[in-house]
Amino acid sequence: GDGRMGMVYDGDDLQFTSRARVKFTLTGESDSGLSFGGEFRVDHEDEDGSSASRGGAGHVYISGAYGKLSMGDIDSASEKANGDLHGVGLTGLGDINEFVYLTSDFESNDNPGALYEYTTGAFTAYASMMDAGDDYGFDGDNDTVWSIGGKYAASNYAFGLGYEAVDVDGFDLNQWTISGEGTFGQATVKAIYSDMDNDGVFDDVKQYGLSVMYDAGATDVSAFYKKDEYSFAGVDTGDADTWGIGAAYDLGGGATLKGGIVDSDYNADTIADFGVAFTF
Amino acid sequence: GDGRMGMVYDGDDLQFTSRARVKFTLTGESDSGLSFGGEFRVDHEDEDGSSASRGGAGHVYISGAYGKLSMGDIDSASEKANGDLHGVGLTGLGDINEFVYLTSDFESNDNPGALYEYTTGAFTAYASMMDAGDDYGFDGDNDTVWSIGGKYAASNYAFGLGYEAVDVDGFDLNQWTISGEGTFGQATVKAIYSDMDNDGVFDDVKQYGLSVMYDAGATDVSAFYKKDEYSFAGVDTGDADTWGIGAAYDLGGGATLKGGIVDSDYNADTIADFGVAFTF
Amino acid sequence: GDGRMGMVYDGDDLQFTSRARVKFTLTGESDSGLSFGGEFRVDHEDEDGSSASRGGAGHVYISGAYGKLSMGDIDSASEKANGDLHGVGLTGLGDINEFVYLTSDFESNDNPGALYEYTTGAFTAYASMMDAGDDYGFDGDNDTVWSIGGKYAASNYAFGLGYEAVDVDGFDLNQWTISGEGTFGQATVKAIYSDMDNDGVFDDVKQYGLSVMYDAGATDVSAFYKKDEYSFAGVDTGDADTWGIGAAYDLGGGATLKGGIVDSDYNADTIADFGVAFTF
Repeated sequence: GDGRMGMVYDGDDLQFTSRARVKFTLTGESDSGLSFGGEFRVDHEDEDGSSASRGGAGHVYISGAYGKLSMGDIDSASEKANGDLHGVGLTGLGDINEFVYLTSDFESNDNPGALYEYTTGAFTAYASMMDAGDDYGFDGDNDTVWSIGGKYAASNYAFGLGYEAVDVDGFDLNQWTISGEGTFGQATVKAIYSDMDNDGVFDDVKQYGLSVMYDAGATDVSAFYKKDEYSFAGVDTGDADTWGIGAAYDLGGGATLKGGIVDSDYNADTIADFGVAFTF
Repeated sequence: GDGRMGMVYDGDDLQFTSRARVKFTLTGESDSGLSFGGEFRVDHEDEDGSSASRGGAGHVYISGAYGKLSMGDIDSASEKANGDLHGVGLTGLGDINEFVYLTSDFESNDNPGALYEYTTGAFTAYASMMDAGDDYGFDGDNDTVWSIGGKYAASNYAFGLGYEAVDVDGFDLNQWTISGEGTFGQATVKAIYSDMDNDGVFDDVKQYGLSVMYDAGATDVSAFYKKDEYSFAGVDTGDADTWGIGAAYDLGGGATLKGGIVDSDYNADTIADFGVAFTF
Repeated sequence: GDGRMGMVYDGDDLQFTSRARVKFTLTGESDSGLSFGGEFRVDHEDEDGSSASRGGAGHVYISGAYGKLSMGDIDSASEKANGDLHGVGLTGLGDINEFVYLTSDFESNDNPGALYEYTTGAFTAYASMMDAGDDYGFDGDNDTVWSIGGKYAASNYAFGLGYEAVDVDGFDLNQWTISGEGTFGQATVKAIYSDMDNDGVFDDVKQYGLSVMYDAGATDVSAFYKKDEYSFAGVDTGDADTWGIGAAYDLGGGATLKGGIVDSDYNADTIADFGVAFTF
């Protein structure tokens, strides 16, 4: 389980924040050596109406020599290959360090997603798919949502590349994402670039950003910068800058002091938080 | 806990299916040797709005020399005595192999049902009751829902008989159910017949069916046929046939490959599923 | 976990009652010896829409030489110092033995309360606070809800005193509560007096009452009397009497037979319950 307690400043007012959660980790192994399992949190039974008992939250998996297959509330292949920038603060402060991936969130109850992963040496290939038909009112013939991606992870650097596509009646969207990460002494630097192309009524979106985490023993310092650029039919329609900085101090035994500041065009004010995070 | 992952074909489209669940099993024993306990799943806290913390899901029990008394989301006495036909598939494919029992589902939050069981030798007697008053808008005087049943289970065969009654203001419904089961070598055959008589505005319903499970070591094959006949005031108003066939292969360690096909007048198309079921 | 099963007589009709619950207790300790943890029940994830994962139910804490700080669904300082009268019955029969504290229930999801406790010798000081702004539509500047209290607990007697205040735009409410408790042989007697003063459109409320618990080995007998007096601008607007009596018999191993009777001006009829309570 995990928990946290602290304060959030929302630009106007200081408020308390706290939470406690428990995660169930289920594992087994078949006679032929396939491993299988499931993971979900207690709050996965009602948050947003999605529940692990119906495939809309948490996930199950089966894993062997031919790779690992997961179903449930999975990340897209491109998100698995590229990930997010380093985050800051006790609560994540809106999690704006996270990139928006086109096909990570189409799952719902009775409509889980599937993710396949295969690792050989330093390279991992990912493929994900889900059926958008039932929940979005499209007919049953042409409604899949899919993604492929790959990640090469050496000891001090890593690269990722991913592609995602939504092709349903009247809508045709796709997104490329590329990322690189390198460790230089105590500092880890990560950069991500993503280009979403919408053939239709929505804006195209470019996301890019850079983050650094500096590991000074018990203390970590993180910072990120992310920019989102919107355009329609080649004409700019706006952009948004976000930066964040944060620090964490390990108290040992699963307790960590954490604090952060985020300034974003998405928020009216600069926001900040501070407190203790727990893992049990 | 348990889980599953696989594919469902709904007659039109192939879709993923998955789930993960955890069950809490609580037990204790008093100084005089009465055993007691409770059982509920995590998802029993919100599925359909019924929760184990308010008696509408899961159950608690106390058990001793005088029998076992359970309260909560219990099955009726007749359902305990007669049960259901053998099911097929990874997901149950609609669970049409299950008989509809008149008084199994009147529980709700703050209005649990009670079930009493007493076993002597090969014979078990069942009695169940709940109060339908609060949730169904009837007055408090004449609103009970009850059932009695008995089951004789020898080593290779079993018989069951049950009666259920709903007697509330203006409604008078009852249902008889009889069942027999026999094991012949590796095959187990089960037959159930049920007759529901409604004095009032609803149809009478006759349900009957037969199922076979053939146990060939690690592989099991199951099949069922069920027919429901509807009539009003002695005049036929329709019927529905359902058949199903399925197979299961035990992978060991709690993992089982399962698949099935169901064709039913209740569904527009023949449906099928296939995948892996887990127990943890 | 805990559970119960039995019967409730609501003055008109006898009905079954049952429940089963599981509580998660998470604990840890930092390298410097601070203890921390979290507690919540499975049903804390959806009951009344409040969830432990968002701070509206359950709580987390950190504790050391400088006291204990808790956040989440906490009791007010005055409630911690004074508590409630002894309760009766299997289900609590409406929990009318409990005093209404002004500031115990302002928490909600994303808006937890904070409670600080410090003990020196027989004396414990309490302070609690929460921010009522976000959920009650008040502006962010002048919307805190707070309480202070103290309790002196010797071996055979205890005294408590607490003050609570709600000061938000246009509303100014406060409540004093004082309590005393003494043990005389096998009997424990408790008295509480509380005075809530509302500057505004609501009634002032005086609550006072007395309870006795007599511990006769495996059997306990409890009784309480509570009176609530309502007035507006110094003019009486009504009052309500409640008395209750109950008994409990310990069956050992975590099972207890319990029953009670409550007669209250808040209920149309005298109500009663009887059954078995479990702890696991």
